[in-house]
Amino acid sequence: MRTLSLIGIGTGNPEHMTVQGINALNRADVILIPRKGEAKEDLADLRRVICERFLENRQTRIVEFDLPVRDAANPSYRRGVDDWHMAIARAYADLLAAHTGETGRAAFLVWGDPSLYDSTLRIIEHMRRETALAVALEVVPGITSIQALAASHRMPVNTIGGSVLITTGRRLKAEGFPPNADTLLVMLDGDCAFRTLDADAYEIYWGAYLGTAEELLISGLLGEVMEQIVETRARAREDKGWIMDTYLLRVRG
Amino acid sequence: MRTLSLIGIGTGNPEHMTVQGINALNRADVILIPRKGEAKEDLADLRRVICERFLENRQTRIVEFDLPVRDAANPSYRRGVDDWHMAIARAYADLLAAHTGETGRAAFLVWGDPSLYDSTLRIIEHMRRETALAVALEVVPGITSIQALAASHRMPVNTIGGSVLITTGRRLKAEGFPPNADTLLVMLDGDCAFRTLDADAYEIYWGAYLGTAEELLISGLLGEVMEQIVETRARAREDKGWIMDTYLLRVRG
Repeated sequence: MRTLSLIGIGTGNPEHMTVQGINALNRADVILIPRKGEAKEDLADLRRVICERFLENRQTRIVEFDLPVRDAANPSYRRGVDDWHMAIARAYADLLAAHTGETGRAAFLVWGDPSLYDSTLRIIEHMRRETALAVALEVVPGITSIQALAASHRMPVNTIGGSVLITTGRRLKAEGFPPNADTLLVMLDGDCAFRTLDADAYEIYWGAYLGTAEELLISGLLGEVMEQIVETRARAREDKGWIMDTYLLRVRG
Repeated sequence: MRTLSLIGIGTGNPEHMTVQGINALNRADVILIPRKGEAKEDLADLRRVICERFLENRQTRIVEFDLPVRDAANPSYRRGVDDWHMAIARAYADLLAAHTGETGRAAFLVWGDPSLYDSTLRIIEHMRRETALAVALEVVPGITSIQALAASHRMPVNTIGGSVLITTGRRLKAEGFPPNADTLLVMLDGDCAFRTLDADAYEIYWGAYLGTAEELLISGLLGEVMEQIVETRARAREDKGWIMDTYLLRVRG
């Protein structure tokens, strides 16, 4: 059977690579790298940097491929995502069939950790269900943006014995700060949903491009740094063409 | 000023070490390793294995030390923990003063990630507040048991757009399964709190000694595997003298 390794590569610092990840990289016959279009070219670049720095197996090939594009015109967001994931699943099956033998090994380098807010595992499930290709899966954990955020702010994520809710900007906007956690980690927020909260009640610890040389960090009482975060974020996004950011909110201590 | 690195080492697989962690290890003048007593001798062993495998700087010294023991007789749990952490903070200050020069670098190897359910960062805060020792802090993220659990079960932690609550066994028992998350990650549960839930309503993904050669994994409908987990856990704990485990609960799909 073919083996497919999903290797978590961390958030932009090549030194987030684990020894387990480096070894999985070097066991692969082929490393599959998506081209993501201009805006996120930096992400494809990071994958190339990682291969240049850590790949020592001269037998391993690197194959770049174009991902199918999501049909943003689909009126159902969920349906649009499903169709898109199916198209990617078929593309993955074709790539594996074309570039690995029947007992070969392929690897994907996955931003952050394959298990957290990443679609690759779900797409592989689609692929296994919908195509004839049999594949054994190996998952190698990697440093997430949550961990990079906490490390850069040198802070614990949880309070003593407290719980932590990991959620999305969309949910924070819809549901507010939940009653059963004193710490919130917000992912995938393109809309600065923290602006909808009581600015006097929370502290915020924000970071963008975490782990990279361009890392940005802002923290403080929400009401005091909110506008600074909104402006810094908008400017960075315009300068760079893309942004990846995350933040922690905590009930004011 | 002195620098103290808190290096996340992952959950038992030495290959969880990141390149960033290995480099921090090799920059240290001294690596401080706690002896934890017989039961968790395996954990001290892991730290020694990591030093043997990844430490190449011959100038770096390894110093083992005994941690103060918590006074379990203190009637206030919280107060007992605070006193204990203060005692550790003083021990850390003494160690740093004894084993590093005024601009020296020391490193602690922290199980998992220093930012998640670990007390080292809080103890360092005590140390900075209560002792005269000035220390710059560096935090190197590491693979958590949550990530090792998800990787071994080859599963995504979150559902699409869903939120995830990280909580403790104590809170699960007191508060039940929360209404605002469809996924729960339970840490520090010595009491199998999942037994208090509706056994037909949830799936469980359990793991112990994650990342090690003795890793144990059980998953399924809660009602169907609950007893198996309780028994496996009790037996392993008795055989080995200690157990570290965690689990994911998800509303039945």
